[in-house]
Amino acid sequence: MDNQRLHRVTEQMKEEGLEQILVTATTSLYYLTGYWVEPHERMIALLLTADGNATLFGNEIFGLASTEDLPFVGHKDGEDPVADLAAAVKPGKLGIDKFWYSKFLIGLMEHRPDVTPVHGSGPVDENRKYKDEKERSAMRHASAMNDQVMAAAIGAIREGVRENELAALVNREYLARGADCEGAMLVYFGPNGADPHHGADGTVLKPGDSMIFDIFTPISRYWCDMTRTVFYKTVSDKQRQVYELVRRANEAAEAAIRPGVPLAELDRIARDVITEGGYGPCFTHRLGHGCGIDCHEPPDVSGAADAICRPGMVFSIEPGIYLPGEFGVRIEDLVMVTEDGCEVLNKYPKDLQIIG
Amino acid sequence: MDNQRLHRVTEQMKEEGLEQILVTATTSLYYLTGYWVEPHERMIALLLTADGNATLFGNEIFGLASTEDLPFVGHKDGEDPVADLAAAVKPGKLGIDKFWYSKFLIGLMEHRPDVTPVHGSGPVDENRKYKDEKERSAMRHASAMNDQVMAAAIGAIREGVRENELAALVNREYLARGADCEGAMLVYFGPNGADPHHGADGTVLKPGDSMIFDIFTPISRYWCDMTRTVFYKTVSDKQRQVYELVRRANEAAEAAIRPGVPLAELDRIARDVITEGGYGPCFTHRLGHGCGIDCHEPPDVSGAADAICRPGMVFSIEPGIYLPGEFGVRIEDLVMVTEDGCEVLNKYPKDLQIIG
Repeated sequence: MDNQRLHRVTEQMKEEGLEQILVTATTSLYYLTGYWVEPHERMIALLLTADGNATLFGNEIFGLASTEDLPFVGHKDGEDPVADLAAAVKPGKLGIDKFWYSKFLIGLMEHRPDVTPVHGSGPVDENRKYKDEKERSAMRHASAMNDQVMAAAIGAIREGVRENELAALVNREYLARGADCEGAMLVYFGPNGADPHHGADGTVLKPGDSMIFDIFTPISRYWCDMTRTVFYKTVSDKQRQVYELVRRANEAAEAAIRPGVPLAELDRIARDVITEGGYGPCFTHRLGHGCGIDCHEPPDVSGAADAICRPGMVFSIEPGIYLPGEFGVRIEDLVMVTEDGCEVLNKYPKDLQIIG
Repeated sequence: MDNQRLHRVTEQMKEEGLEQILVTATTSLYYLTGYWVEPHERMIALLLTADGNATLFGNEIFGLASTEDLPFVGHKDGEDPVADLAAAVKPGKLGIDKFWYSKFLIGLMEHRPDVTPVHGSGPVDENRKYKDEKERSAMRHASAMNDQVMAAAIGAIREGVRENELAALVNREYLARGADCEGAMLVYFGPNGADPHHGADGTVLKPGDSMIFDIFTPISRYWCDMTRTVFYKTVSDKQRQVYELVRRANEAAEAAIRPGVPLAELDRIARDVITEGGYGPCFTHRLGHGCGIDCHEPPDVSGAADAICRPGMVFSIEPGIYLPGEFGVRIEDLVMVTEDGCEVLNKYPKDLQIIG
């Protein structure tokens, strides 16, 4: 167990009036226990009480065992996965991790009609927003690797290349730098860049295309996530105008970050730049998202966001403009809030680049 | 809506005493509606009643709309995702899809204390076990592509190659044949093959290594999944003995498949071959798993399985022997139960191969 994190989580439980919660998400369990378990259809749950008691329940196939500070109660395939857990919870409110599977919650409720399940991800999620020193180092490292991989991807652009070749190259470059897994990278050429549902496919690069690289991976469990847009052979006046607008929106938002500033205000600042440039309706998504052990995690960075910048928060700043049938531009950095501003974790340049 | 499938599902609902169910899994929704929606943290749910009424509730970001046979009720980000759904369900038992997120179920229960959530995946899962004609074609096609990709992967074995290079090659070969996405292929060299938690990494091939290729991908939504084990440069007597034992276990189980045979019996047949050969404790997992729109889906093929072979079932037969610190061998095919036996979907040979 990470006792400092555990302490902060139990303080937050008291604040939220939760005497007991179940932590079940892979990433939240890792945050508190250091165990990385992908349970798929099987059961794992950490039962935490506000006075700091913790017990881990799970399938024996995960290979876990009791330690000095964390007892483990195992069950086998074929046995009732929630029987021991149900016997251990107290009557009354029980906070439930938001992504726990209903089959387990229903099983638990069948055992314990005296337990009332309530939303219970808050205490862990609230704390995960603020990265501690160890996490800050991990996120800096992952983004430094991402800068290198972006350079490799943009360096590999050539006549006739296909989107999915570059996506595969990004995966290989990540693996060579310690990535935990492969992923479906977003590489868009030309009009594909204006379609948010497009996945990298066999589309061949053509002169005049904008190329969006939205690349992200976990390295030692912490995610990087960066987007750059470059142009192939030529750039039209309209492409240049849109590019510079997105870049100004990205930089204006980043320049405004300091403790106390509402995240909704950052979204507004970036959106105002794009709206004043005449492309407001073409910026079709929120400005950004928290990033850490999950690629997308709290805080939300949108016009509806209620969080305030505080030191240690890490989130993306990723304005974009999408012109269906023509092209798209998106520029994204991860940023970390500091005592008096922010540290932009991505150093790969944002100057307009024409390749080839 | 696929009305034939809908009809079979509502018949099964009646059999299970379920008047209403929520279908929420991406793959089950696809099975019934043809829509492929990956909702991530957002909400989508098909409310089905035993008399055949169907209504789809979901976030508007998915871009769905009402059709003649399926009304759609949308909500926006920021709105209560289950309010409309809660208003539409009837009092009493409500079957819940097993992987629905607890946050939605808790929200629904807060609206409707008169509704009792119960396990509700059965009616769809039971039907998905038996592939209809369209599905059989899709599964044959995916496995035919898998035979080609296995040949390409084994053809690419060379001095100094790394596990993750071959895994990346498998992904590229799949994409060239219409795979829906990339995945984390299992390629193990030498002792790595005995560690079920190993992922393909930078391990370099050495003479005398066994090489396990466990490769799988969805093609037009239906999965293929095959494993072959080959040897590099030389094979020891022990490797040969273990290989032939696993092969005999695989072939004995496949030879026993016909309608009416319990799946648990297939597991026993394969396990007996390996036990009689002296390696019983080293076959550490179940014989196989159902495969279709999910790579792992019902039926289970283990000693505890309760299903019986029936025409249209598709599952894997994948015995293995794992010798920690030494090597592993696994041989896996997908098979489809026919009227009088089975069709082995994978044609890539199982003769012992020494490469290079």
